[in-house]
Formats: sequence, structure tokens, C-alpha cells
Amino acid sequence: MARAVREVRETNPLAPSITNTVTQSFVANAQLAVGGSAAMVYLPDEGECVAALGGAVYINLGTLMPVYEQTVPATARACAAAATPWVLDPVGVGIGSLRTRLIEAVRENPPTILRGNASEIIAVADLWGLGGNSVDGASGDGPRGVDSTDSVDAAERAAVACARFTGGAVAVSGATDLVTDGVQVARLSGGSSLMTCITGSGCSLGGVCAVYACVADPFVAALTATAAYNLAGLRAAETCDGPGSFQVAFLNALYNLTTEEVTEAPLALTSTSAA
Amino acid sequence: MARAVREVRETNPLAPSITNTVTQSFVANAQLAVGGSAAMVYLPDEGECVAALGGAVYINLGTLMPVYEQTVPATARACAAAATPWVLDPVGVGIGSLRTRLIEAVRENPPTILRGNASEIIAVADLWGLGGNSVDGASGDGPRGVDSTDSVDAAERAAVACARFTGGAVAVSGATDLVTDGVQVARLSGGSSLMTCITGSGCSLGGVCAVYACVADPFVAALTATAAYNLAGLRAAETCDGPGSFQVAFLNALYNLTTEEVTEAPLALTSTSAA
Amino acid sequence: MARAVREVRETNPLAPSITNTVTQSFVANAQLAVGGSAAMVYLPDEGECVAALGGAVYINLGTLMPVYEQTVPATARACAAAATPWVLDPVGVGIGSLRTRLIEAVRENPPTILRGNASEIIAVADLWGLGGNSVDGASGDGPRGVDSTDSVDAAERAAVACARFTGGAVAVSGATDLVTDGVQVARLSGGSSLMTCITGSGCSLGGVCAVYACVADPFVAALTATAAYNLAGLRAAETCDGPGSFQVAFLNALYNLTTEEVTEAPLALTSTSAA
Repeated sequence: MARAVREVRETNPLAPSITNTVTQSFVANAQLAVGGSAAMVYLPDEGECVAALGGAVYINLGTLMPVYEQTVPATARACAAAATPWVLDPVGVGIGSLRTRLIEAVRENPPTILRGNASEIIAVADLWGLGGNSVDGASGDGPRGVDSTDSVDAAERAAVACARFTGGAVAVSGATDLVTDGVQVARLSGGSSLMTCITGSGCSLGGVCAVYACVADPFVAALTATAAYNLAGLRAAETCDGPGSFQVAFLNALYNLTTEEVTEAPLALTSTSAA
Repeated sequence: MARAVREVRETNPLAPSITNTVTQSFVANAQLAVGGSAAMVYLPDEGECVAALGGAVYINLGTLMPVYEQTVPATARACAAAATPWVLDPVGVGIGSLRTRLIEAVRENPPTILRGNASEIIAVADLWGLGGNSVDGASGDGPRGVDSTDSVDAAERAAVACARFTGGAVAVSGATDLVTDGVQVARLSGGSSLMTCITGSGCSLGGVCAVYACVADPFVAALTATAAYNLAGLRAAETCDGPGSFQVAFLNALYNLTTEEVTEAPLALTSTSAA
Repeated sequence: MARAVREVRETNPLAPSITNTVTQSFVANAQLAVGGSAAMVYLPDEGECVAALGGAVYINLGTLMPVYEQTVPATARACAAAATPWVLDPVGVGIGSLRTRLIEAVRENPPTILRGNASEIIAVADLWGLGGNSVDGASGDGPRGVDSTDSVDAAERAAVACARFTGGAVAVSGATDLVTDGVQVARLSGGSSLMTCITGSGCSLGGVCAVYACVADPFVAALTATAAYNLAGLRAAETCDGPGSFQVAFLNALYNLTTEEVTEAPLALTSTSAA
């Protein structure tokens, strides 16, 4: 994780995105704050082009436009062809039919990192037919809009199943975060309740996962991004009077985090007991 | 109004939007700051889906994409079918032909709350054929881009006519704001001239009207949102050195407003004298 | 330049944009901060409509949607027909094919001001067949995503060629900025390295060029906008702890700049030696 933080700051890797219009600016600013570079596109051949550039691509299904029907599958294919890591953020799965079709479509070229809230991760595991994800405590209701109706613990089985299926990592965001590679399960604490009072804290975490995935394996990239977010959230909450100044302080904190701080982040690692 | 402020904070209602890309982030952050939840979509079946979720929907015509031709009428119909309140923000009416067609199209499933600047409200009343809106002082020029060329007072007759036609409420934003249900006309003061120096103060007010419309009738929802904005604007202006810090302080102030402050907002109520 | 700063503040000119979704909000807020008015559109007939309003139009190719294929050429034609100045920001030229086609398409109705980083300006000169732009030090690689791989000096010949071709001005952004009308070449210093740590500093400079182009000739408009940016960047960097507060302080500084400060900006003027 220390190496990932340092290498991003030294090499300024480009992590292009196909991402929603609501939080695009915050995603880009968070990617820049940790030392990466950002570029957002919508068109199919542009998705293929940025996938071929290397680095790592961030795909977020938040505000779908009609052209996403072509762009998302084409970009996933191009990432597979170029062995470019990519991060999927299944925002709002359950709203309309295209989100569902796109998640099903990328099953054959799955993401290196899947990031979402608990309800979103459970929904993706179901759509990919990874079966048996219902556990005690899961609502079975799916997300409410873009919010989770499930706890992070209720999504552990789905997260492990997705990670085993993709061969990459899965990050579930919540009060305590969970990151797994299908074998190990890490729980990370920190952050701030104010992160739910600003739009884009989840999306920009996905974008920062992509930045670290330019220089590290998926599990380390997801852990590093999550640890950085928890620390920056904690620090920002110390000085702010509300969500306006929290957002400002959060970007400052991301920018000013030291390698040491990120590697000392509280992180509890266990082996998965999932079947 | 006190009940609306409190109930939103307690129930975190979801107010989905179809809204312009310029101010989307600010709309979502303002909705979250008052205690609501936000989700933005563009596609027709997604608009229908969020209309069926309940809550209240915010539709803003600011940066039309081609798909809006289907999405806006479909969502208005779905809101009518589900008795979901919705807020229309006719930003930039007069630019291009699609805005005009969409405003005409939703006439048969009209919004619960219509919010805009004076020139926009006059233009909508004209498009809906509610006649005789020209009064002394109205420019007759329509908006200039997204800015008003008319005073709020010049739009009173049009606002009352629209409210009577929709059976809901109309909020006209300006130096002094006007809110009417077609019978009563309230004038609210406060705010700050810096609100015209940041983009999205009007749009985000529309989004916050939708949040309060999840828990209150249209007139109370529009009054509460307008009063909250005026207070937050006043408070934010006290501490800032320009539009950058004003925007930050404004979101903080929205988040920190107390129920008492909102209900003590200066508000002058009269009966309409419009025919 | 003093006159441009003052006249914008006095007349609040409208500079409509067709611009990318990532930085749209920052573009609008920067345009408002210097005293202009903003309006963003995407549809072809809306582009034609805003071109006919007068003022000056800003076109940025950052996040192309399919409809841009019609909108950009139609708006460039409408600007030519109405003698409305317009600013082209060729963001990300080299990603996908539509950017290339659009830059080629507007060759016959070229922009009044061309603004970009060094690699983008070199790429445009090549696409317009203005030949012989390779100089010692140019990478020949094109931009990397939205970032420059070339120095500003390496783009001087291309910038002068573009300015002579369009009859307007070209602004090349970098550590030291270059502005030329094809005869004179100005170099402006200032700014802050933090400007590369926030998204939209380049885009919003393009939008502010359009605001000043409403009241001044292209060379003066580009100089004024660039000088204002360098000063605001310097001032914002003095007080901030990172990119979050830099963005806030930058908008405040733009808003608070005095006419005198802008006209005293360090500016080195030479005659071009380019063939």
C-alpha cells in the first residue's frame, strides 16, 4: 500500500472514466488529489481508445445515456483485450432496464475491481447468477435509489462470490468497509458520517481505486483507496462545520495524506469462511 | 413548515431528478444538506421507474439531450399515474424548440410545483395558453439565456394563473421571492446577491422543493424550501469573501438550519387579487 | 485589458457554452465570478439559437455526446453567420474519431480564439494542415488523455500558424502561458502548480476568454482572461492547504480582482519570428 501511494504520486498515472454526470467533477478532483490524472469519455470508440492506453479504467453506471448501451460493453471488451484493469461501480442497479443489461453484458469481461454499497454488490452477484447470496439481515429489497438498504456484513457472501468469479477484488462501502479478493476479507474503519451528506464519495472512491489499480494489484489498490478515504474522511470531519466545508477539507486531506498515514490505517484481515 | 423541516431530517426522503448537467452536483448536495436523498437519471424507463418509487420528482429543462423528448413526457405521465408530486424548472425556455415542446407536452400532466425566475414563469403561462399575463413592467422579451429580464412582481399574474391551472404551487425566484397556490400569495425576503454569482442556486432550490414535497403539500413545500434558501443565503453571505466560499458556506448553512429558524423566516402573506 | 475587465463587470455579458460535463459547473462559476453570465446547451438548434444571441460562444470538445456531430458544426456556422466570436477548446484531441472530425469540420468557420495546452494546439495545427509545426522539443506524441506532453515553447509555431489562419487569437496554457494574434506573441507568467491539481482550470479559462470576447477583440480577450487566471491562481495558492480550498479561493480571487491588478500583470510581448 505504501508503494502504491508513492508510485501514483511519482508517475501521475492516467485513469480514464466513463462515469456519471452528477459526480464527475468530484471524481476527477479526487483522482488528481491522490496524484493521478483524469479523462472522462462517453462514446464507444473513445472508451476503446482509453482502454488501450493502459492505466486502468473506471466505469460508473450512475447516469446512463443511450450511447452507454454500446460504450460499456465495448470498453469492457477493449480492457480485456489490452489487459487493462477496470473498476465497475454499479450505481443505482435496479432503476430501469439498461443497468441490468449492462451488468449482465460485462459478465464475460468482468471488472478487476467491483465497488459499490452493500445492496449494489448483492444485486450484482444475483445478476451474475452467483447464487445463494441471501443471508440473515439482507433486505432482499435492492438499493433504494442510489442508497443501500443492506449492511456491509450482509453483503460479505456476495462480495466474496463476485471476487472469486472475477479473479479480482470487491470493495463494499459502508460505515465499516469490506474489501476482499475472494480469499482474504479486510474490514476498514474510519471515515465520517458526513461522507453520506455529500454526493460522490462512493463514486470518487471508485475513481481512486482505478488510479491505484494503475500501479498495484486489485486487492492492494482497493485497500489503499479505501484506507485513504477513511483517513481523509476522519481528518476532514475534524475541521468542518457542514457538508460544504467537508468536501473542501476532504480533497485537501486526500492531497496531503502521507504514505505512512495510509499504511498505518486500521485494517482487520480475516480469511473468508464463505463456501 | 416546521413539520416539513423535521420530517425530512427524520425520514431522509428520496427525491429523484431529471436535471441539467451544469448544476446536478449542487442540486444533489443541497438535497442531501437539508436531509433528503438524491438520484439523477436520463432514460425514459428510468424516469418512469423513479416516478413510481413515490417521494417527489424534480425535472429541470436546463441542458436538454435528445432523449429528453421521450423521458420528460413519460415521467410526467408516470408521476400522474402514481400520484407522485413533481417539480418543473423551465430553465432557459425560449432557447431552441425542444424546451417549448416539452412544456407544452406536460400541460396535460402538469407539475405539482412550478419553480423559475420571473421571465420563465411568464413564458410558461403563455405556452400553456393561460392568457393575459402581460402586465405593466413585464419586458415581453422572455428570459435572456437562463436569466430573467422581468421583476418578480411582473410575474405575479402568470404565477397565480399557473397555480390555479395546476392545482399546485408556483415559486418565482428573485430579489424578493413569490410563492402562490393560486389563492394566497406569499412574499419572502432574505438571500444574498451572491446567489446570482454562483451557478445552480435556482436549480438546487427546485431540487429542495421536491425534497419537501415528499412530506408536505406543494404550497408548504415551496414556502419551506424558499425560506430555507433565504436564510442560508443570508447566513452564508455574512462570512464569505466571494462566490467560492459563499457556495461552501451556503451548503453548511442549509445543513445547520434549525426548525425554529425556518419557521421564523420573514414571510408576507396576502390574498391574490388576480382575476 | 482594463476596459475589458470593467466593461464585463458593468454589462454582465452572456457567453453561452457547449462544454463538457466534467467541468461545466466550474466553467459557469468562473464566468459568473468575472462578471459574465453563463448558459450551457447541447442540441443543434439550441447552439444556433445562442450563437444568434450575440455575445461570444464557448465550445469545448471534452465529453462528446453523439449529438455533438450536428451541434458543433451548426453552431460554428451560426457564429460565422451572425459574426459572433467563439472560442474552441480542443480537449482530448486524439481520443476517438469524432474529435478529429469536428476539428476538421470547423476549419471552414474557424474559432475567434483557440485555447488549449501545447499538445492540443500542435494537434489542431496539424489537423488543419498548417504544416511544419514540429520543432525541436516537440514530442510528436499528441496529448496524453487531456494532458500535454509538450512544452508551451514547442507549440509557438503551431499557435502562430493557427492565429494567422483564423485571423483571431490563440492561447496556449502551461507553466508560462503564450497568447498570440499571429503577429505579436505574449508570454504571461503567474498561476500556481495547484491549477493542475484541480479539474477545469483550462476549460474555465476558455469560458472566461469567451466572456471577455463579448466586449474586446480576440487578442485582448485572451490576454485579459489569461492574466486574470494567473493572478487569481497566485493569490489563491497563498492561502490554501490543498486543491479543495484552492478551488474555493480561486473563484473568490477571480471575483475580487481589480482592474488595476489585471493590467499590471507581468506580460512579455515580442514580435513573432515564425515564418
